[in-house]
Amino acid sequence: MAGTFVTLEGIDGCGKSTQAQRLVEALGEAGVEVVALREPGGTAISEKIRALLLDPANAEMADECELLLYEASRAQLVRQVIQPALERGAVVVCDRFYDSTYGYQFGGRGLDRQLVDTCNALGSCGLDPDATVVFDLEPEVALSRATKGGADRLEAEGIAFQERIRAAYLQLAQEQPDRVRLVDAVGTPDEVFERLLAALADVLPMPPEGEEA
Amino acid sequence: MAGTFVTLEGIDGCGKSTQAQRLVEALGEAGVEVVALREPGGTAISEKIRALLLDPANAEMADECELLLYEASRAQLVRQVIQPALERGAVVVCDRFYDSTYGYQFGGRGLDRQLVDTCNALGSCGLDPDATVVFDLEPEVALSRATKGGADRLEAEGIAFQERIRAAYLQLAQEQPDRVRLVDAVGTPDEVFERLLAALADVLPMPPEGEEA
Repeated sequence: MAGTFVTLEGIDGCGKSTQAQRLVEALGEAGVEVVALREPGGTAISEKIRALLLDPANAEMADECELLLYEASRAQLVRQVIQPALERGAVVVCDRFYDSTYGYQFGGRGLDRQLVDTCNALGSCGLDPDATVVFDLEPEVALSRATKGGADRLEAEGIAFQERIRAAYLQLAQEQPDRVRLVDAVGTPDEVFERLLAALADVLPMPPEGEEA
Repeated sequence: MAGTFVTLEGIDGCGKSTQAQRLVEALGEAGVEVVALREPGGTAISEKIRALLLDPANAEMADECELLLYEASRAQLVRQVIQPALERGAVVVCDRFYDSTYGYQFGGRGLDRQLVDTCNALGSCGLDPDATVVFDLEPEVALSRATKGGADRLEAEGIAFQERIRAAYLQLAQEQPDRVRLVDAVGTPDEVFERLLAALADVLPMPPEGEEA
């Protein structure tokens, strides 16, 4: 497809939402059409699914149900927004995509890897990101950032849960080094953003910082 | 498992919901613990997913999203209600289960069969019915029954859609004759109910009609 699909990943509180926003602003300033999305969500239907997933009233949710809801939300986003945007040549920046399902459901909850991989193939409708950045950070540091804004159902599961998710992301970066790029998330937003741009330099249609076109 | 899992299938308006109710009443009168369910639905979470699926406001729903929502609803029902009921020895009567996904998504919408089979395996968490009754009826007759109560999003797709679903059910009955039993749905509710009991005689823990214990 003509466009570029970039996904941002990491444990809760790693700072990726802030970085996503900065990346979207930088691309816009460079005159690039950019579509900013977050998962789960990004379409009217996906946002309704998001509400189901994050509502603490649904704490009795079975692991398989949760997994399939994430994938349903994702499939809607891919078909309704991401694919059309890529077809017209836009850069799509998605705050979480299928690697989050890998990290949280396989790494965090211990679901079967083949099950998660199968579901991810279904929910993504076969679409893979051109590049994925994993913001890597100690869970203690990340969790202290995330809970500033109040813990949701996921964040309530604690440090050990986030440790397992981090380990899964690190494993993924080892397995798919071309697509999955680790970025050290320690430091100021400016420092991290510089690392982010460097990590994506080969896929983004914008000049590196300091080299205005 | 100790219990018995029976599912009832057929195109819209085939009369299965009426028959499900009669079966549940008959089992109850025979002193059998019976759990009556409908799909999608049957748990608080599954009913919320059902509402998403049946809301005409969500007409922009992608096929893959719809498929995964059905499976998510199903997984919750299996884990929260069906499996515990079967473990304690109950008869579970479910108005639609994974064969509806086969009928509607593969037969009706033309989704890939392997995709649907994979999703069904996920959503059912590997649980298969002990017996499945397909109430078979001409779509013209069935649709005239169904639309009496008002057509929902599915029923609005018309006769040709229901024809394809019927064909898929008939194919399933050929492929899995031990599990999937065809029942002619033409006739009075009494006539159809007699056929239903006969079709399930080998799996139900109740005396045949007219032979009170």
